Order: sequence, then C-alpha cells, then structure tokens
Amino acid sequence: MFRKLATFEEAKQLIWQTLQPKPLGTEQIPLLEAHNRVLAQDATSTLDIPPFSRSTVDGYAVKAQDTFGADENQPVQLKVCGLVSIGEPPMVKVEKGEAAEIVTGAPIPEGADAVVMVEDTQREDMELTVYGSVTQNENVMKKGTDIKQGETVLQAGRVLGSREVGVLAAVGNAQVKVHVAPTAAVLSTGGEVTEPGKPLPSGKIYDINAYSLCTAVWESGGKPIYQGVVPDEKEPLRQALKQALASADMVLTSGGVSVGPKDIIPATVDSLGEPGVFLSGVAVKPGKPTTVALIGEKPVFSFPGHPTSALLNFILLARPIIQVMAGKQPTEMPSISAVADRRMFSAKGRRTFVTVRLVLDTEKGLVAEPVESGASGAITTLAKADGFVEIPANEQFVDAGEKVRVCLFREGT
Amino acid sequence: MFRKLATFEEAKQLIWQTLQPKPLGTEQIPLLEAHNRVLAQDATSTLDIPPFSRSTVDGYAVKAQDTFGADENQPVQLKVCGLVSIGEPPMVKVEKGEAAEIVTGAPIPEGADAVVMVEDTQREDMELTVYGSVTQNENVMKKGTDIKQGETVLQAGRVLGSREVGVLAAVGNAQVKVHVAPTAAVLSTGGEVTEPGKPLPSGKIYDINAYSLCTAVWESGGKPIYQGVVPDEKEPLRQALKQALASADMVLTSGGVSVGPKDIIPATVDSLGEPGVFLSGVAVKPGKPTTVALIGEKPVFSFPGHPTSALLNFILLARPIIQVMAGKQPTEMPSISAVADRRMFSAKGRRTFVTVRLVLDTEKGLVAEPVESGASGAITTLAKADGFVEIPANEQFVDAGEKVRVCLFREGT
Repeated sequence: MFRKLATFEEAKQLIWQTLQPKPLGTEQIPLLEAHNRVLAQDATSTLDIPPFSRSTVDGYAVKAQDTFGADENQPVQLKVCGLVSIGEPPMVKVEKGEAAEIVTGAPIPEGADAVVMVEDTQREDMELTVYGSVTQNENVMKKGTDIKQGETVLQAGRVLGSREVGVLAAVGNAQVKVHVAPTAAVLSTGGEVTEPGKPLPSGKIYDINAYSLCTAVWESGGKPIYQGVVPDEKEPLRQALKQALASADMVLTSGGVSVGPKDIIPATVDSLGEPGVFLSGVAVKPGKPTTVALIGEKPVFSFPGHPTSALLNFILLARPIIQVMAGKQPTEMPSISAVADRRMFSAKGRRTFVTVRLVLDTEKGLVAEPVESGASGAITTLAKADGFVEIPANEQFVDAGEKVRVCLFREGT
Repeated sequence: MFRKLATFEEAKQLIWQTLQPKPLGTEQIPLLEAHNRVLAQDATSTLDIPPFSRSTVDGYAVKAQDTFGADENQPVQLKVCGLVSIGEPPMVKVEKGEAAEIVTGAPIPEGADAVVMVEDTQREDMELTVYGSVTQNENVMKKGTDIKQGETVLQAGRVLGSREVGVLAAVGNAQVKVHVAPTAAVLSTGGEVTEPGKPLPSGKIYDINAYSLCTAVWESGGKPIYQGVVPDEKEPLRQALKQALASADMVLTSGGVSVGPKDIIPATVDSLGEPGVFLSGVAVKPGKPTTVALIGEKPVFSFPGHPTSALLNFILLARPIIQVMAGKQPTEMPSISAVADRRMFSAKGRRTFVTVRLVLDTEKGLVAEPVESGASGAITTLAKADGFVEIPANEQFVDAGEKVRVCLFREGT
C-alpha cells in the first residue's frame, strides 16, 4: 500500500491510473452566467440560421432574370409591388417584372431570388429603373447557410467565453447545460500555523497554503471549501479529514507529510478507507513528500508545508485531475522560451523545478533568473517568480546561457 | 459634435482623451473570494516574516561557538537543557555548554545562535555528543528575512491569483481591499432581433450581441447588466438608454449605427446629455459605424450589429477602458506568430482586421487561415476563429507565406 519514492513519470501515471478522473455531473444554468464554465453536451441547432433567406443590402428584391443585360446604357424597368419590412414575414409576392423594396436583414419575399442594391436603381413613384444586373442569389444570404438545422455548433468540453456564448445565443439558447464544478476541501496542518485574520500567538506563523490552494482550485475550474488549520494531532485530524471527505469531491491538505515524528497525515488518511494511500513520495524537488490517496471514490492530495512546494505540486499533479473532473481537457501550462541567467542545478536523481523570474535583457532577450527558495520556506518566492524551469532527473544542471522553457504561473498581466 | 470618420489611431486617442477612465472605487472582501480581483492599495506587512528566528532543521539549538572544531574524531559534549516545541514560545534558555532539542520551524531559544542537525549528534539521556561544527546562524532562518515589517509585499493594481493570495495570507490578511468592478449595461437594438429563450417570430433572428458582449465584459474584469433587445424606435430606445445610464457605470449597445434610416442610436445617445457623441465612425474593417459618446461621466459605446464586428471592436476599443476602470493595467491581447495561408486584402484606406483560424502544418508551422465573415453576418465565424490579423490602412494586402502576428481571442484551451 505504501510505495517507495516514485519517479515523476511513475507518479503521474499512477495517479491517472488509480484516480481515473471523470466529469462529475451536469447542471442547467443561465447562459449569461456561463462564462468560463464547460459545455456538458454537444450543442446542436434546432433551427436553420438564418431561419429564412435574408437580404444583405438595402435595395429591391427581384427575379434575377428580369435584370439580365441591364447596365447604365440599357436599364430595365420594373414595377414596385410593395415593401418588405425588417423583422416581419413578407406581405408581398414578387411576380415577373416586379420589385419589392427591402432593407438589409429583411426576408426575401416569395417569387424573388436576388436583390438589386439601391445605388443601382432610380425610383419614381412605383416605377423602378434598374441600371445593373444581378445573378441568382446575389445579395441574398440563403436560409441555413450559416448554421443548418441539426448541425453541431459547439462540442462538449468547450470552455465557454464570449464567442461561444454568442453562438449558443444565436441558436436560441438562454440556458446551457454545463459540467458541475468539482468541490475540493482544503485544509492545512502543522502545530506552527494559525489562520490569517486571527491574532498571531508567539511562536506561530500565519498559514499560507489553505489560501493559496483554495485560489488555485478556483483557477483550475473547481470550487474550494476552506477548512482552515487543523491541529497536528491524530483525532482532530481524523475528524477534519472525515468531514472534508463528506463535504467535497476531493481533499487537499498541506503540511505534516515530511519525516518528522508528528507527520501523521499519510497514516491518518490511509486509515479512512480503501484503497487508501497509493503514492507516498515523489522524486521531485521541491515536493518530495507529496502523498496521494484514494478514499472510496475521492482523491486526497497531501502536499508538503513549504508554500512554493505545495502550490507547484498542486499545479503539476492535482490541477489536471480537477480539470478533467470539471469536464475540461487537462491543459499544458503556458510556457515561453528564455535564456538561463546562471547555472541551475538539479537535485541528485530528482526531477527539479527551479522557480524563476523573467527579465527582458536588451542583448540576450528574455532571461530566466532563479528566485531563491531554499530551505527557508520563503513566501515572497511565490510573488516574485513568473514560472519554473524543469530539469530532468538524469541531468545535473542547465548551464548559464542555455535556452530553457519556462512554464508560466500566469499568462499576460 | 459629430466628427468625420477617424483613423484607428485617432479614434483610440480621442477615446482615451475624452473618457479619461480611472478606477471607480474600492471594497473590502474576504481574501478567499479575491481570485481575479485587483488589489486597490499597496499591501504592506505589519509584521516580520518569520516573526521570530526559526530552525530550518530537526536537531539541537546551541551556541555556535561551543561546536567550533568539532568533527567525527573530536566531538564535543553538550548538556541537553530542554526541548523547544513547535508553535510555542521557548520555555528554555541555552547557556554555554548547553543544547536544546528543537524541531523544524520551532523558535530559536534565547542564548542559542545556530542549530546542529540531529544526524550530526548522538544522545544519551541528557548528554549530547556533537560530531560537527556549525557557524553562527547556521540552520536558522532569522526573524524578518523573508519579509520585513513595513515592507510592501504587493503593489496596487496587481491581479490576485493563487500566489498573491498566498502572500497576503502570509502577512495575516483574511480580508483585502480591491477595486470595485465597473458595471456595464448591455443592450441590443434592431427590428429583426429577438431574445434567446423566447419563441422566434417569423422574419426574426435571435440576438447574439447582448450575450457575447455581456460575457466579454466579464472577461475584461467588469460586471455586465443584461438589458436585452430594445425596439428600434426613438422613445423606447431613449427610455432604455436612460435606464442603462442610471443603472451602470457604462453602456454598450449594438445594432442601429450603420446608414439605414432606422439607425437612430447616435442621435438618441447624443440627446441624453453632455458632452454627447464625440466619435462617429472609425476607419476600420469590420466596425466602421462604431460610435462613442460620453454622457455626464459615463461612456457609451455603440457597435454595429454584425456579431464579429461588435465583439472585435469591443475588444479593440472598449475592453482597455473597462480594464482601467477595474483598476488594472490595460493589457495587450496575447499574440502569436504564424504564416499567412493565402493573400489577405485590406479594405481601402481602413485598418483591416481579418479573423483567422490557426492550423499546425508539418512543413510551414503555424498557419493563419482566414475565416470568412463577409457581409453575411455569419455567426459561426466567431466560434471558428482563433484570433485576427491586423493590416494597416496604408497596406493593400498581406501576401501568402508572409509572417503575420495573430492576436488571440483566448489563450491556451
């Protein structure tokens, strides 16, 4: 049940194989609130778009044949038989030798098959002189040319943004079926941490991880449930974990997984149900003590207490699982190419992630500067770093001046 | 008051100069809900982090001097004077020749200035044999080394993500002062459009723009207020615009701005207050009829009815204004380099934006394929395009095979 330290690749494989994440369920919500949600089923159109053939110009709906051969010198004469208003079914029918006045977007009336632009005509009362010819369907957007009835306009799994919401509105939806966001209970352990917003007792520091992980859950498409700081003692921890498992679709803990005598998380998690802890330690730096369990159908990720380590391992291992539970494709982190500012060493035999800041150098271009984290648990590392450089376990270092790929914590801003 | 068609650059300049957007106000919210909000003031720390000097290892707190010269062959003997627990003020003082047991993260007790790792010691009852020397401050994280009291940890204007929320938690905040999100009332006009979710009368089509623009407002950091479809008649339109101005910080309309006799938006907007319409038409394609007004202190953007045109011009002209009102830096759109699939023409004398789809070609790399939009008002353009290529007004075309910069509607997924 407790395995030896896994390589990073083994750990990822074991996590996917054991957790087998899948989307949780669906719910119907107003389309106006669907921003950033995930479409739960293919969206098909129940109607043709446009639902009728429309004029794309202001002018006169005609039979194209009636205009053949017309030009500046040899105009043709037609009789105006009426007006087609926008937004209403046409009340007029166009017979041979006739023309119906029409505006952009209005339905083509029966009998007509083209529209002459108003610029190519001259009108006196009901007499229309046409100075140019049109071919069949000219200046007409035919019914169903944009979307055909029954056509799939968006596929399940698509994240909804302004463009997708526009398309769903076009086919008449005011509601949309989306995937339910998975909930994640987030708790911190450790005798030295206390919750932000409370007075700070002597000897304690404020908890960071429950806050940063809750926010990271939002960023992954999940819904966090903050459970705060839990004492580092067996029974309160067991109760808190039971409550977390009962209230959420997954659990994230931090702290209490390294080698100290008080690091009781793995054993406590394991005691809560089958199959229990299946991954205990990953050969990465930082984040080696990361532990993953499956209790019933619920994943439990236990990260180390070091803030950068907790967030980084969340991003690497837990985020893709949340994304899949939310109905999304797991996304690669956005990345950018840069030049290593100095030699960056890997930890022996461990996949190493070096947090870096990006600086634009006029000569070298984009430069990746390591942001020191070290054993200190430095918090500011998090705010200063733009992303990280990955060094494979079998490489000793990345050299100064070498090209590196920087995985970005956030794009743009 | 009504100006002639402005170039794209003139339009942007006039909009910034006239609207002079600034952040609206601030509000205090729970830090756990601050994801994606904008920090309204510099965040400074009221305490040192760590608030006390801490051990970074498990071992014994000592006077470094007592260990000088100690090695495997010449260990030194110290007397264990007590235990420092984690999360509590130390109850013990270390005198010359003494050592206090300590765990990682616990406060360094008075009298000690370094920590010997447990691996370098052997203990029998209260007798400690130390097999290695430590220098002053070795294995100690000094009080305030991560963050100094009074230090600015994050600057105003920063968008809050998991890392920033972590830093704010570290300095003890459970609440944070953020900028208020600007509200934008969104309405569509046009006799041919009806609201999604309602039955579709003959001759009408479903409105797209109020939905896509509301979602685009969310994406820009604003809060949309959906006002739906307003009839294309002077009095109802005037009433709807007055209500929009009363209920929101800005107004977005679409439809009713081209040249038809029923295009009454500009005149109606202009009648609602000073200074009124200051930009009436921009030399861009698509989006030429775009009209911008300032009524009192509230911006009113009126976009054409064509869905791609409305969204594109929102992104180009209105989004940066909303971002500034939300307290953010206006961001450039993310962009990527690609190769033009075919020749793309510009509209004569107008800055042209060609919507394109990106396709990965094994030989050419990333290729930008124009997605036809044309006069048809095609809706699917929106869903199919990944972004757009910009062609300056003074260039006739971009040639096939030429390198182009594609501004992306959305990153990643």
